[in-house]
Amino acid sequence: MPISDLSELANELRKYIVDTLATHPGHLASSLGTVELCIALHYVFNTPDDKIIFDVGHQAYAHKILTGRRDLFPTIRTYGGISGFPKMDESEYDAFGTGHSSTSISAALGMATASKLQGNTQRQHIAVIGDGSMTGGEAFEALNNAGVSKANMLVILNDNGISIDKAVGGLSNYLVDITASPKYNKIKEHVWRKTGGDSGPTRGHNFISKTLSAFKSSLLASANLFESLGFRYFGPVDGHDVARLVEILSQLKNIGGPKLLHIVTTKGKGMAEAERNPITYHAPGRYDVETGLQLKGDTSHQPLKYQDVFGYTIIELAEKNPKIVGITPAMPTGCSLNMMMERMPDRAFDVGIAEQHAVTFAAGLAAQGMTPFCNIYSSFMQRAYDQVIHDVALQKLPVVLCLDRAGLVGEDGPTHHGAFDLAALRPIPNLTICAPMDEHELRNMMFTSQLDGMGPFVIRYPRGLSVHPDWRNDMQPLAVGKGRCLTEGVSVAILTIGHVGNEAAKAVALFAEKGRRVGHYDMRFVKPLDVELLNEVASRYDNIVTVEDGCIQGGFGSAVMETLQGKFSGRIVSLGIPDYFVKHGSVPLLMSHCGYDADSIVKTVDSLY
Amino acid sequence: MPISDLSELANELRKYIVDTLATHPGHLASSLGTVELCIALHYVFNTPDDKIIFDVGHQAYAHKILTGRRDLFPTIRTYGGISGFPKMDESEYDAFGTGHSSTSISAALGMATASKLQGNTQRQHIAVIGDGSMTGGEAFEALNNAGVSKANMLVILNDNGISIDKAVGGLSNYLVDITASPKYNKIKEHVWRKTGGDSGPTRGHNFISKTLSAFKSSLLASANLFESLGFRYFGPVDGHDVARLVEILSQLKNIGGPKLLHIVTTKGKGMAEAERNPITYHAPGRYDVETGLQLKGDTSHQPLKYQDVFGYTIIELAEKNPKIVGITPAMPTGCSLNMMMERMPDRAFDVGIAEQHAVTFAAGLAAQGMTPFCNIYSSFMQRAYDQVIHDVALQKLPVVLCLDRAGLVGEDGPTHHGAFDLAALRPIPNLTICAPMDEHELRNMMFTSQLDGMGPFVIRYPRGLSVHPDWRNDMQPLAVGKGRCLTEGVSVAILTIGHVGNEAAKAVALFAEKGRRVGHYDMRFVKPLDVELLNEVASRYDNIVTVEDGCIQGGFGSAVMETLQGKFSGRIVSLGIPDYFVKHGSVPLLMSHCGYDADSIVKTVDSLY
Repeated sequence: MPISDLSELANELRKYIVDTLATHPGHLASSLGTVELCIALHYVFNTPDDKIIFDVGHQAYAHKILTGRRDLFPTIRTYGGISGFPKMDESEYDAFGTGHSSTSISAALGMATASKLQGNTQRQHIAVIGDGSMTGGEAFEALNNAGVSKANMLVILNDNGISIDKAVGGLSNYLVDITASPKYNKIKEHVWRKTGGDSGPTRGHNFISKTLSAFKSSLLASANLFESLGFRYFGPVDGHDVARLVEILSQLKNIGGPKLLHIVTTKGKGMAEAERNPITYHAPGRYDVETGLQLKGDTSHQPLKYQDVFGYTIIELAEKNPKIVGITPAMPTGCSLNMMMERMPDRAFDVGIAEQHAVTFAAGLAAQGMTPFCNIYSSFMQRAYDQVIHDVALQKLPVVLCLDRAGLVGEDGPTHHGAFDLAALRPIPNLTICAPMDEHELRNMMFTSQLDGMGPFVIRYPRGLSVHPDWRNDMQPLAVGKGRCLTEGVSVAILTIGHVGNEAAKAVALFAEKGRRVGHYDMRFVKPLDVELLNEVASRYDNIVTVEDGCIQGGFGSAVMETLQGKFSGRIVSLGIPDYFVKHGSVPLLMSHCGYDADSIVKTVDSLY
Repeated sequence: MPISDLSELANELRKYIVDTLATHPGHLASSLGTVELCIALHYVFNTPDDKIIFDVGHQAYAHKILTGRRDLFPTIRTYGGISGFPKMDESEYDAFGTGHSSTSISAALGMATASKLQGNTQRQHIAVIGDGSMTGGEAFEALNNAGVSKANMLVILNDNGISIDKAVGGLSNYLVDITASPKYNKIKEHVWRKTGGDSGPTRGHNFISKTLSAFKSSLLASANLFESLGFRYFGPVDGHDVARLVEILSQLKNIGGPKLLHIVTTKGKGMAEAERNPITYHAPGRYDVETGLQLKGDTSHQPLKYQDVFGYTIIELAEKNPKIVGITPAMPTGCSLNMMMERMPDRAFDVGIAEQHAVTFAAGLAAQGMTPFCNIYSSFMQRAYDQVIHDVALQKLPVVLCLDRAGLVGEDGPTHHGAFDLAALRPIPNLTICAPMDEHELRNMMFTSQLDGMGPFVIRYPRGLSVHPDWRNDMQPLAVGKGRCLTEGVSVAILTIGHVGNEAAKAVALFAEKGRRVGHYDMRFVKPLDVELLNEVASRYDNIVTVEDGCIQGGFGSAVMETLQGKFSGRIVSLGIPDYFVKHGSVPLLMSHCGYDADSIVKTVDSLY
């Protein structure tokens, strides 16, 4: 295909993405921003032998369509369909699976190092990373290592000023500076003119290389952040000019060592609504193809999302308690801290994609008498595991960790399911760990967590809708480490933690219809566990079923077994996420597969009679 | 005290540190490098109201001595004595506890933000961080956030080119460049001359500020990596010139916003041997005060350290298997990968203080057909928890994670005990997790892990000496997920994982002397657990004791309970690290306190008869 046709291909691809996602929701705006880049990469590089690694990966839809998944594209993010992220076992063109940010440079360096050791000097290794992901510490660790490695790798910095929310921090400002700077633009123009510009044929890599070297020693010196670390920096270039991208990528292909190409793109490119509101159109759900407007069902009778209950409640608490501050690592819209950022800009902080820093920053605030609420998605908290142990728990600092998206998250799949938090955090001394069964409980837990003397406090709650028509209760303190009996029963007791208590309640109601009384206890706290209540349950029932929206191994059920060992002779059956990575699909479907929705609970209880 | 006397104070302090550590071992070289800095900081700043946070913290000995702990200094790192790291509950002068690296900027930013919200505009917030720690991703996350924060904070970059081993990576080269560059030195001289230089009085912060601004707009522009991120950069200055340090710190005190002062120091300063061999003298053990030479007992009859068994064995394996590569995040001497780095420099990588990157880098290598052995201390693996899940386990990549220093580590205390690895990793699907009872088992496990088709493999082993006089066995493959019976017994069976099996063996021998037969099973694998063997044990014994050098909650004992739930009516008593942070002290003492040394095992078994 001649280069001149690539623009038309980009238009077609973009239209196909927009048309498909209108009825098959997915990550729209990021993928629209990288259409030309994906085309240029596949035009220039010899995939799958050459390796392209998409950081985070929700911008890779055009890549998926170009690599044999056009027909499958409407199945994206549905059970049995293709994943919303690159996956090694989905296609040989997906060189490395992603989902979490800031891993691509490390992986590309690993692959480049492997190729070198294997004597393959031809293979190209390309990491495509957004300016938001570049703020994640792992990306810096990888730049620092790669810069001295002489590995044959190309980092493409896809700079659109947006991660999911607006990109923040010194790096973001810096990228704006160098993009806007006449000095850099002069270089860019100079290089393009000397290499033939838009019209003429390229005079090859030697020239571009020489020209940039000359500039490097005069104008740039080690003036550039990436050059400081040992990368050769190229750019910024227009990431929507596919012919230019093809040209420069072809040249860069022949330059060895670690290189960084800075491209500037528009998130949502080509769809007016998405360009205007890239944050809303990051994952807009269904929309009208003609107008681009979101199609929203009538949500007026729905309960509020848990994240919004968090968003409203932290403001309500902060208005009364001046010690409270809010922290989010780059998820203000996702966790609804954006409400507090608008209302109390001095007391709510988006620290960038930086989970490690977010937690230690919170610990620093707490060490000076503040009560920080640090909101992190459960699966991203895995990034800050050491900081929770080393900076928060060990020092008993009153940081409130709110883990949103805890448990199965559905369509985002295995990289995003919040499966491990309870099992991973439970062994850490000094933590209080709880999970609400509904939004009133969430509010009570948030209220309790900010009271004096509480210490490190973890509240985990799920993605999606809460329970009640009216979310706003009169907040009450909870007794730490105390559960509650919801239904008294005989023979079998169900012990639950968190929102899956509602599945258990359904099961209990089904049994009640049949005249069978099954006990149901909402334990509220995983740590400390209510030993008194457990002893009572052990003495009154023959068998116990535990239910949690988290991994079975080492989790809540395991804690119950540890506590009752030697005190209870009946069966304890633990329901939760089994010992495999759960695929993507709708939450009810996955929960049924994992065996802890209401029907599964009924079956398990039945098997114990 | 007049400034002119501070040099003499530095000499005295240095002598006291050298004299004391000669017989009370500790972190020598780092602390010698920061004597002048600690004096200048306490001279200029109003501690404890002003906050000084030492990154990692093993360089803070002079700080401890200067803040009321002179007499206690000989107790350092001993049970009941002062800690080798800053600890908030040890002294109000220790503003933030440390031990792991790269947290100081985040914590200082948190404190500065708290002061601002509390209306305190006077308080100073200072992070002292080494050039090695600066490579850790969290430090970059914090710089990125702090650079736009306007927070009143000062980062002091203590640049000695060494972390524990030689600092590596692009940043390290960059610091050498800017330190050696005439351009930077010119600025330095200019600033000092204009501000009165060595002799005259300072003309205050306005002048220094203006001068640097002028330079900034002409020479530096945003030419400096730290300025790129929004910090004002000062330096480099000689970190052993205490009068200069006092002068510049006094000036910086009056400049608002985020600032970075780059000082250059010599690790081991003032002790010839330590200056010559800063890696060896990082923590040299006992030495002769006069000569500075290390005093080593006769170790010829001792078993090898586990780390050295790893170091020799990976070379032995790599010589036969060309797929094997070795990776360490800045611990080549500590984990003995330095042997492979010398012997096979192309196949062994020190990636800097960068645990996250180390694991994803390994995953990238594995994705391209290599078999990387990534060696990380257990407590530092906490930094890479997400990468183990997201990059290694989810993709079933054959990365071998060797967790050195697993279990109690002794004198380094709670930040360094490897307590949580088994409980945190056990819930992760696709992992194989094992622990050797002795060095022959370690070698067999390493041999097994690199065989084709093994997938992600975790081997955890302790700090310190192995068991046998001759470490070199003929390596054999082990059956994955199979334990072994060491002693058959009656009534009580002890199940162990890893090296604490030797404590259990002692206990079993003590019982045997009294004619009592206690069963002992070394399970070898925590995941998959040998269910067949467990069922056999359950059928043949009345009670079970599990022993592990790791946290009880969620750990190996918990896995045994999960497996035997409903199959075993006896007691299962789990011994291991209880639910609190274990202090520093010798390993045997701590193990006794925690209740899982041989004597404690005897007592527990006795209680079950």
